[in-house]
Amino acid sequence: MESLAIGLLGLGTVGSGVARILHDSSERITRRSGRHITLKTALVRDAEKDRGDFVHSSKIVTDPSLVLNDPSIRVVLEVMGGLEPARTYVLEALARGKDVVTANKALLAEHGPEIVAQARKYGRCVAFEASVGGGIPIVHALAVSLAANQVLSIAAILNGTCNFILTAMTRDGLSYETALAKAQELGYAEADPTLDVDGTDTAHKLAILAQLAFDASVTTRQIPRVGIDQLQSADLRYADELGYGVKLLALAKYAPSGLELRVAPTLVKLGTPLAEVRGPYNAVRVVGDAVGDTLFYGRGAGSMPTASAVVGDLIDVVVGRSKLTFDALNLWPEGSPAPKLASSDGVRSRYYLRFSIADKPGVLGSIADRLGNAGISIASVIQHDPGEDDAKDSSVPLVVMTHIAVESKLHSALAEIDRLSGVKTPSVCLGVEE
Amino acid sequence: MESLAIGLLGLGTVGSGVARILHDSSERITRRSGRHITLKTALVRDAEKDRGDFVHSSKIVTDPSLVLNDPSIRVVLEVMGGLEPARTYVLEALARGKDVVTANKALLAEHGPEIVAQARKYGRCVAFEASVGGGIPIVHALAVSLAANQVLSIAAILNGTCNFILTAMTRDGLSYETALAKAQELGYAEADPTLDVDGTDTAHKLAILAQLAFDASVTTRQIPRVGIDQLQSADLRYADELGYGVKLLALAKYAPSGLELRVAPTLVKLGTPLAEVRGPYNAVRVVGDAVGDTLFYGRGAGSMPTASAVVGDLIDVVVGRSKLTFDALNLWPEGSPAPKLASSDGVRSRYYLRFSIADKPGVLGSIADRLGNAGISIASVIQHDPGEDDAKDSSVPLVVMTHIAVESKLHSALAEIDRLSGVKTPSVCLGVEE
Repeated sequence: MESLAIGLLGLGTVGSGVARILHDSSERITRRSGRHITLKTALVRDAEKDRGDFVHSSKIVTDPSLVLNDPSIRVVLEVMGGLEPARTYVLEALARGKDVVTANKALLAEHGPEIVAQARKYGRCVAFEASVGGGIPIVHALAVSLAANQVLSIAAILNGTCNFILTAMTRDGLSYETALAKAQELGYAEADPTLDVDGTDTAHKLAILAQLAFDASVTTRQIPRVGIDQLQSADLRYADELGYGVKLLALAKYAPSGLELRVAPTLVKLGTPLAEVRGPYNAVRVVGDAVGDTLFYGRGAGSMPTASAVVGDLIDVVVGRSKLTFDALNLWPEGSPAPKLASSDGVRSRYYLRFSIADKPGVLGSIADRLGNAGISIASVIQHDPGEDDAKDSSVPLVVMTHIAVESKLHSALAEIDRLSGVKTPSVCLGVEE
Repeated sequence: MESLAIGLLGLGTVGSGVARILHDSSERITRRSGRHITLKTALVRDAEKDRGDFVHSSKIVTDPSLVLNDPSIRVVLEVMGGLEPARTYVLEALARGKDVVTANKALLAEHGPEIVAQARKYGRCVAFEASVGGGIPIVHALAVSLAANQVLSIAAILNGTCNFILTAMTRDGLSYETALAKAQELGYAEADPTLDVDGTDTAHKLAILAQLAFDASVTTRQIPRVGIDQLQSADLRYADELGYGVKLLALAKYAPSGLELRVAPTLVKLGTPLAEVRGPYNAVRVVGDAVGDTLFYGRGAGSMPTASAVVGDLIDVVVGRSKLTFDALNLWPEGSPAPKLASSDGVRSRYYLRFSIADKPGVLGSIADRLGNAGISIASVIQHDPGEDDAKDSSVPLVVMTHIAVESKLHSALAEIDRLSGVKTPSVCLGVEE
């Protein structure tokens, strides 16, 4: 059996997982790929760091040209993350006739057009299952398995850090700050968690899914996003009382009038599969015109789950399937027009609203009037006796769940309500995903 | 763009869904497959029946040779179901150089070795995503996406009829008979539901999954199976009280000592994704050594979801990926030894037990003794005051949840318990999937 040399760019969390699978499961990988795959060179920044038992020190290099300029290396696995030098290395590897497997969602979301154009120019392919949802094969599902469908919508939990924090806030009643600290302690959140908790990471992944599902070449900047960093425990409690969990969702909905894209904390009905996704797990719900509702669930990050997707892609590249898929998909085609995005007139949803109101007569009525004038009908209201927390500033919370409403009208009504004298701003508004 | 002619064997529920997708979504299918796919001929038994708007009557034939002997037809979609004449037609299509897409689980479970040998002999491929889990791309997941993993276990809800019935029994408190009648009324169960409710259909699908996940060439006959037809509402109520749902699960577990395979009603912890699979939905939980826990969820049957998988496979065949996958998988290899199956000494699980005991002193003690002697420890017990139902025959139900126990020891203990004078046989024993 012929052997095939590969190079690894990065030997951190994901890279060491890849090296471990290649080492431990070489027999299965050989059987499934038809080639004896050998890890020839692994690029690291600091050659002195311990790399575990799976890569012999003689293979570890700090000079990228030892991977990129080695003509015997046929496939490069980019698992270093970040935009540079990953972008430069990937472009270079493609130019030198190597196929590329990458786990780098930021790279694809930001430089997808440039990278696929380079692959096309040199007749190579880029495989990127690991870039979204870690070990969950959602890229394959959208690119291949569900190809007979017009995807109608995607609702996805794509950031394990956020889902862990939200689960801890809901289950254990922790504040956002305490839950974040716990996530950091357990290694689910980085020292600087900004890109996770502000929704940027989720938006990167949604940009990739939107490309696959809707041929929509959106950049991360085009995706409106709200993170979980402003979320208050009170809203998770009230949502629970109403029978909902709160998840940071990546949402994409197809309509002839335009594509709706957003990342935001969203209420999800308890007892549905998406609401039951807890801790660091991810899940992607895809609704297709033929297949109906589907859900793909698994670990969205971590060394071995992400490495599972990288090595799966590697086998796919070696077998020759990835090239066929890459060519058929025509990702980020050159000169394609920007996708038509839905305006907020076209977005309809149920909404969860929380107002902090003065505990005096007439305020509830004024709010209900403003909503009614905007054609927004109220499905349910929660107003408890003032609690200890609320007493501090002499305001009480008023929670309103609306029926289906048009987003633009809701926002106008909220602006009016926030100007009422008995209402403390800002009011909280979260969408509801049925 | 070149066109490519296909033939359809069967124009029933699935076949008409396939015809509809080919008609409605031809632009997308052309884009994804790179060929203009035309449905040339559709074989039916009765040409007089109305076939809807998606196949012109001139294409509908009753003579199979008009599909099988037409050299212009490159791919045959077998969606007629049943063993014969499907088997003969599929073998013939392969012999005549056509690739085959099939939705027929019984055919693969019973005649898989013969069919793949024929495909190999003639250099063709067989794609069968639709044979398991309807629109859920679980075949792809196991064959391609999770290829880097040693699959450790599969726990799957694969029969929508059974899951609908169990959901109706649990949610609405219906008896098995009433729930079955409701399923028939809604079209979720056939007039003769035997193969669904006795677990045969689930076992067919498990045989296919076992081949993909473990390279285990098992026949349906080798899979121990218990259906839902003997299940009593009382057990669903007690399970619920203990925090569990009851699902008809297909179970496969990998251990060096042997593969454990079974189909049986099983308790699943409420609040886990598998337990939240309701109504006619299917789901497959796959645990891999690298990826960890994954779950794939969707509609397991029905015209359009199954057709989604058939047309997905068709695109895969046309693009050329299916052939690469088929060759790499080496399904049902000739001369392969039978897989080593776990003996009941090797099977360990928690168990739910229900005894009907005489309402007199000492019986509970005797039962606890017998379990204790076999090394089986009790996690929890439910014994209520005798209710109306129970009073009729002067016995009361005793429900026991065990800790992890060895199956062979449990069965010995149960045989002893069933011989006790205060115990009415047969006792109920259901496994628990954590």
